Amino acid sequence: MRAVRYGPPAVTRNFADRLTDAVLAKGNPVVVGLDPRVDQMPAFVEAERPIASFHEHVVAAVAPLVPAVKLQVAFYEAHGLAGMRAFAETIATAREAGLIVIGDVKRNDVDSTARAYADAYLGRVPELDCDAITVSPYLGRDSLEPFVEACADRGRGLFVLVKTSNPGSGDIQDERTGDGRTVAERVAGLVDELGAPLVGEHGYSAIGAVVGATYPEQAVALRARMPRALVLVPGYGAQGGTGADAAASFGADGLGAVVNASRSITYAYGDRDVTAVAFAERIRANVTRMADDLTGALESR
Amino acid sequence: MRAVRYGPPAVTRNFADRLTDAVLAKGNPVVVGLDPRVDQMPAFVEAERPIASFHEHVVAAVAPLVPAVKLQVAFYEAHGLAGMRAFAETIATAREAGLIVIGDVKRNDVDSTARAYADAYLGRVPELDCDAITVSPYLGRDSLEPFVEACADRGRGLFVLVKTSNPGSGDIQDERTGDGRTVAERVAGLVDELGAPLVGEHGYSAIGAVVGATYPEQAVALRARMPRALVLVPGYGAQGGTGADAAASFGADGLGAVVNASRSITYAYGDRDVTAVAFAERIRANVTRMADDLTGALESR
Repeated sequence: MRAVRYGPPAVTRNFADRLTDAVLAKGNPVVVGLDPRVDQMPAFVEAERPIASFHEHVVAAVAPLVPAVKLQVAFYEAHGLAGMRAFAETIATAREAGLIVIGDVKRNDVDSTARAYADAYLGRVPELDCDAITVSPYLGRDSLEPFVEACADRGRGLFVLVKTSNPGSGDIQDERTGDGRTVAERVAGLVDELGAPLVGEHGYSAIGAVVGATYPEQAVALRARMPRALVLVPGYGAQGGTGADAAASFGADGLGAVVNASRSITYAYGDRDVTAVAFAERIRANVTRMADDLTGALESR
Repeated sequence: MRAVRYGPPAVTRNFADRLTDAVLAKGNPVVVGLDPRVDQMPAFVEAERPIASFHEHVVAAVAPLVPAVKLQVAFYEAHGLAGMRAFAETIATAREAGLIVIGDVKRNDVDSTARAYADAYLGRVPELDCDAITVSPYLGRDSLEPFVEACADRGRGLFVLVKTSNPGSGDIQDERTGDGRTVAERVAGLVDELGAPLVGEHGYSAIGAVVGATYPEQAVALRARMPRALVLVPGYGAQGGTGADAAASFGADGLGAVVNASRSITYAYGDRDVTAVAFAERIRANVTRMADDLTGALESR
């Protein structure tokens, strides 16, 4: 097994500025999802460490092209302790390649427990340290504050679930509350308030939101309620969201959002007997096609 | 390091029946929270594996007295990969002692990702396998269904966050929606529907709910909306909930709920130089006091 160098970068620069700088440097807002689905990996991955090996190939291929990667921790946890070790190794691989690491962990809990999660994933535990994570808002403002503090103290970022990409997202999120706002709109207001002290040089806050590409009309309304939030857009590609749909979450300056795709990039490579070289070419082509799609959609708004 | 025997029990019996049987056998509904706070542990714990060692002492002391333990995974994750290993070891220790294991993981995500979490914690991954877990409902019904399926297939249980114990829980959960129900009441309705096919011999369902002891009036209203749900009650003890408050979540038969306490049992033992024998006596006394408090509160309703 290859030696892994764990260790968080000592960052104080605002996460929103770091991510926006990376988007401008790479010229696109594509986030590549690193979701281990072992039965769909190419035959060339190392049999004894398929997850870490697969992601070394993916990261090497896409690091010159994209600003960030997003690790869906559920797919690592589904492989138990070995999976969590592969999660740590994949973070280290992505960091070494200069990529911003988003941990899609959707954690949340009350007070000291929320702080324990913030310690785990936002800068206190070297091997699990992410630049930003996703969190759930169901427990309310005081459950988010420990994460916000960690972001302020350690240059990390947060993406609060506002409107998710799944068909059933409306069950709770679309419910209209007493003041006429939907639950998602109330959470958007909370994101805007919590993020106000953490707005960076580019005008966006380290406290961001998740808004699915699958609900573009709501995305426009939600963006208006949180104009400074960085938005992480899931649901592009395999889940049905188009470039124009995703564009709804960007600011008027064409910044302020990043768009994730997982399966449509890393597993759309053809035959499992593909060579490593051909695999890298194909997933780079997937990234380029998506980047062009998003750029075109943003220009034609 | 002691050898750990991982491995899920092959269960098909309804989780609600298993938990209710255990409550009847032990004569109380106390769940002991196993939350590692290393700086608060007695000096006698093994220095090189404090978390696993501490919980061996706790489990040995309380296993004859209580039906279940609840592991708050955040406090393990805060110790990184070693912490997750300790989580697995603590599960194995509790299982070996015949205790029902509740994983307080508050996970949730969309479709195949929710399934990955269900695989991880509900019976597909031996070292992380719990009898039941907590999940968040923010993503809606379709995000809960993969967990419900795992419970049906593998005799596991679910506690859906309905009304949490923290001061800010009302921010989202208390909001009144279009049909007059609060968000928490809508989630309670969802729990009741999802749980209907999984009602066991004792009249309770394997699909349960989390309702904090800190909001007893709401607990009564929520119990009425989900009469068959097993309720996991946090917020007793250190968070301020009393026995009478917790009693609000029980069914008329005095069953249908379990009450968790963590700090007020495992860390209320006095001086850190306590002996292992005295530690065990003190935490057993804490359990007995809590069991008596709850029994008294249920009898005087």
